[in-house]
Amino acid sequence: MSEVRFHERPRFPRGFRCASRHVGLKPNAKDLALFASEVDAAAAAVFTRNQFPGAPVILGRETLRAGRLRAIVVNSKVSNVATGARGLEHARRMAAAAAAEVGSIADRVLVSSTGVIGVALPIDKIEAGIRGIARELQDDPLVGAEGIMTTDTHPKALSASVGDATITWVAKGSGMIAPDMATMLVYVFTDARFDAPALDRMLRRAVHLSFNMLSVDSDTSTSDTCALLANGLAGDIAPDDFLDVLTAGCIRMTEVLARDGEGAKHLLRAIVRGATNEADARRIAKSLINSPLVKTMVFGADPNVGRLLMAVGKCFECTIRPDTTDASINGHQVVRGGARVDFDDAAVRKALATEVVDLEVDLGIGTATATGYGCDLTQGYIDENAAYYSS
Amino acid sequence: MSEVRFHERPRFPRGFRCASRHVGLKPNAKDLALFASEVDAAAAAVFTRNQFPGAPVILGRETLRAGRLRAIVVNSKVSNVATGARGLEHARRMAAAAAAEVGSIADRVLVSSTGVIGVALPIDKIEAGIRGIARELQDDPLVGAEGIMTTDTHPKALSASVGDATITWVAKGSGMIAPDMATMLVYVFTDARFDAPALDRMLRRAVHLSFNMLSVDSDTSTSDTCALLANGLAGDIAPDDFLDVLTAGCIRMTEVLARDGEGAKHLLRAIVRGATNEADARRIAKSLINSPLVKTMVFGADPNVGRLLMAVGKCFECTIRPDTTDASINGHQVVRGGARVDFDDAAVRKALATEVVDLEVDLGIGTATATGYGCDLTQGYIDENAAYYSS
Repeated sequence: MSEVRFHERPRFPRGFRCASRHVGLKPNAKDLALFASEVDAAAAAVFTRNQFPGAPVILGRETLRAGRLRAIVVNSKVSNVATGARGLEHARRMAAAAAAEVGSIADRVLVSSTGVIGVALPIDKIEAGIRGIARELQDDPLVGAEGIMTTDTHPKALSASVGDATITWVAKGSGMIAPDMATMLVYVFTDARFDAPALDRMLRRAVHLSFNMLSVDSDTSTSDTCALLANGLAGDIAPDDFLDVLTAGCIRMTEVLARDGEGAKHLLRAIVRGATNEADARRIAKSLINSPLVKTMVFGADPNVGRLLMAVGKCFECTIRPDTTDASINGHQVVRGGARVDFDDAAVRKALATEVVDLEVDLGIGTATATGYGCDLTQGYIDENAAYYSS
Repeated sequence: MSEVRFHERPRFPRGFRCASRHVGLKPNAKDLALFASEVDAAAAAVFTRNQFPGAPVILGRETLRAGRLRAIVVNSKVSNVATGARGLEHARRMAAAAAAEVGSIADRVLVSSTGVIGVALPIDKIEAGIRGIARELQDDPLVGAEGIMTTDTHPKALSASVGDATITWVAKGSGMIAPDMATMLVYVFTDARFDAPALDRMLRRAVHLSFNMLSVDSDTSTSDTCALLANGLAGDIAPDDFLDVLTAGCIRMTEVLARDGEGAKHLLRAIVRGATNEADARRIAKSLINSPLVKTMVFGADPNVGRLLMAVGKCFECTIRPDTTDASINGHQVVRGGARVDFDDAAVRKALATEVVDLEVDLGIGTATATGYGCDLTQGYIDENAAYYSS
């Protein structure tokens, strides 16, 4: 995969715009966003595998069957999950309200809701808030990103060029992140022309290598959604080139989300090499980024490197040979043949204190690799989550 | 299973004694313990499934093949894991030193080491420390329990009677606890008479229902060991009676360990009912006690009860029907048919603030049950583990 250069300031592809508003769900901040294409776009999406999916996910699976979207409407603060039949009705009303704004039908609108689980959606406030929002549609993806934030510390958007086309990623997510089929809320917009089945194939491949290798806290959201919309206004783009840039942007956004994990101070990457198969490599990479003891070691910049072996070794079903297992932290070898190396303590402490910490494990028995993305575990995570519902 | 009454102050069965010392591994506290039977005991043990087992675990598997033990010698502070061939040699020397003290052979001594991974065992200090320790053997199990503590806030021992025999449990463990075959360090002593295969069967059954359902932090130790020694001095005991008391004591000790999890303020029990099979019930119970968002909810006494559904629903491979799923917190129903109930907020906050919090989930589709044991997640866990190696 070639190096992809992201635009200095994110921008939309041709024909896409967004708007966001404060409609009264949060005390002050923006809590509603609309993303719209001026023409129907081919579309694909992947959703959470959680067995208690939110009403918007249930509706979204139905909507995406047609493979066409005109708009996405999202509220934050309340997730519309565990709300029964009334929740589904609320999601449909949200789609209809947004469709009226963009001059389309409810079946062309993807709905997302994110926030507290098990609380009824204040649908009247949302319908009132959607009214007139189309007049505010504009060109800055960060405006839409702001409307979908929950515990995120900053709005998240990226864009890059591929030939004459543009790809733009807008995302939110900071906790309850351990996707396994899709993740958090991520919307990808492009003016390249592809049909829905092609988009679906490419989206799944990119998500496999990016969002599905992300874990902030091992908890899988009930609202995870990742959608890709292509309105075709830039014409055809070579699929291989498109997939390269799509994947690079999904990986970059994965890193942005991990670094902004609740309370996080570090982006943690677990790079596993030399595995006998990709499934083992992925499982071990996830075990490393999910381990509370590895995460607190990075937070404390404390080279308690035996914890790396613990986290690899607890993957009972993976093929592992202690005597061929090596490990490094940001290039400093700390384990050779399953035993701790007599490393330079001060240098490794310094490596652990940098913002991006790469934990590299070479199993020495095969050629498969995988990279997992996560963050450290800090008091900030506890503080945010001990009173999330009440605050 | 009938109610088991534990002795007010733990005591040993006939013929068992212990001693502990400070031998210079920790700055001040006790760091070495010896447990001995006056005659050879039949013995069984289960060990960690972590693929980087410590040298004492590798040696212990070999020692236990004979099914006979005379003594157990344990050091804390350094775990003798990831130490290569030299680590195994050190474990053998530790066994030999203890054997000389109790007038037996190294093959009758089980060795355990617990503490930091990947640091060489200070074997000279340990050998010097073992010399003469047999003269200090005495009757209080808490004395031995004190010598094996790491981050535990108190020494852990229990005892109960079964017929004319006694069963005594001595344990340590506070973090890196998510056993899957055995757990932490737990030694069970009895003067009942059973052969090694019978002990092995009963131990595995009791561990299945107790320590294997415990998770402090989802991280599986490289040193987990649970051994059962029966010296026969009290003669035969009905196996069913013995298994009942053995299991009850293992469950009680599991609760003691969970409540003393690093930084914990609450014992958390996840009771899953109505599952189609036991494997599903166990998996969902573990998902609940491992979820950082459920754990922080309990710490904050914040009734963000949608997180219970999230943690159940992320068990992708389990059979779950949202419309039949109910949940309660200490008897207060908070979810009915997969949707949040309009519960008394203040009452549920109060229930979450009690020391023992039972999260009960009824899947409503079968008859299988399981109980998981864990604790809340607090700033204390982060503080302890951000600098464990250095402190």
